[in-house]
Amino acid sequence: MRVIFNEELKAVADDLDRMVQGVRKSIRGAGDALLKQDVEAAQSVIDGDIELDALEESVIDQCVKLLAKQNPVATDLRVVVSTMRLASTFERMGDLAKHVAEISRRTYPASPLPDSAKETFQQMQDFLDRTSDDLVSMLADRDAKTAERIIANDDKLDALHHNTFELALDENTDLTRQQIIDVVLIGRFLERLGDHAVSAARRVVFIVSGFNPSKEPARDEDGAIE
Amino acid sequence: MRVIFNEELKAVADDLDRMVQGVRKSIRGAGDALLKQDVEAAQSVIDGDIELDALEESVIDQCVKLLAKQNPVATDLRVVVSTMRLASTFERMGDLAKHVAEISRRTYPASPLPDSAKETFQQMQDFLDRTSDDLVSMLADRDAKTAERIIANDDKLDALHHNTFELALDENTDLTRQQIIDVVLIGRFLERLGDHAVSAARRVVFIVSGFNPSKEPARDEDGAIE
Repeated sequence: MRVIFNEELKAVADDLDRMVQGVRKSIRGAGDALLKQDVEAAQSVIDGDIELDALEESVIDQCVKLLAKQNPVATDLRVVVSTMRLASTFERMGDLAKHVAEISRRTYPASPLPDSAKETFQQMQDFLDRTSDDLVSMLADRDAKTAERIIANDDKLDALHHNTFELALDENTDLTRQQIIDVVLIGRFLERLGDHAVSAARRVVFIVSGFNPSKEPARDEDGAIE
Repeated sequence: MRVIFNEELKAVADDLDRMVQGVRKSIRGAGDALLKQDVEAAQSVIDGDIELDALEESVIDQCVKLLAKQNPVATDLRVVVSTMRLASTFERMGDLAKHVAEISRRTYPASPLPDSAKETFQQMQDFLDRTSDDLVSMLADRDAKTAERIIANDDKLDALHHNTFELALDENTDLTRQQIIDVVLIGRFLERLGDHAVSAARRVVFIVSGFNPSKEPARDEDGAIE
């Protein structure tokens, strides 16, 4: 029984690893679309989202079957429930990367970003590229240390997100209304990617430690800025 | 055993009903804050969000205990898993209502909305008020017919959301940059509230019919517009 359970759990874990690797690919591709006007990258992020959606469905279906057939308890149950929630978090991250790719494809060959905003968005992208590397290794190793780093670092992305509002509001820059809108929406999508990374990290801390990460995971703290 | 299980499931269902009633209250309060400059309503939405967060935690904890102790299968398992996901959807809806309340509080006593946008946002609010009534009765009665109506109606909100971009882009209106930003963000928050209502409705269809609502639940279809 345990052997079967562990084999089946391993299969779900492999799909979850595929999801987080797909999320990292989508985040990098969205960055290439946004900052390098790479329209092929944009298209592959948009196309690749379908695969992330299917993987989420598959992970959740497998978890429900595990719950029905194996009645896991304690840590095993924590792993199965957290795996379902991680799959939904990664699926949502794919949506957000897709939105950035779609905006970049719409403005191609121009960038949706005014020059005055590119440095801040490059910093947000660099942050998210590092974070997505951390997500992949965190999942592969069930590494709570990496998870704690992801949680601790999120303030930096929030500060950069705050800058995007200042950029959009700066009357000294000559922005079109579309540029103002795109700066604000892309900034929000990138900041939400960071929030979801924190959510995923908290779930891994929960799996490893049993400590319930409480609400902050899904929390979206930037309302006040808006 | 069944008796205990059903009693415990009833307790979770009561908490979930409390959540959806709280969501309806938050949506109405956010609307009063946004469209009537009711700053007390804004504050009570912001304060009330803490309660929704706590209820989500409580619902998920109770569901995990049910899974461990009762090993539900078939429909019962579907109900427990869907209940966890519904709780997360309602918690997120509370966040979105809070964001609208926070923006309205920030601009008080002025409205964050230019006059040119108020009619469209009033229509979005009216739509969401009706939808939140539907959510409450759908949950109380596990009513798939109401759920199907919520799913079918969402196009209307998406069309209104599309209008908010046209309002923000209309060079004939004399908007400040802050107004452009607020129109776009509030429009997005309201449209996401509708998406989450559809997600909740699809989960109820799943509970009642066993038909898997597939990806659309969390789907966020408006990226192309952005």
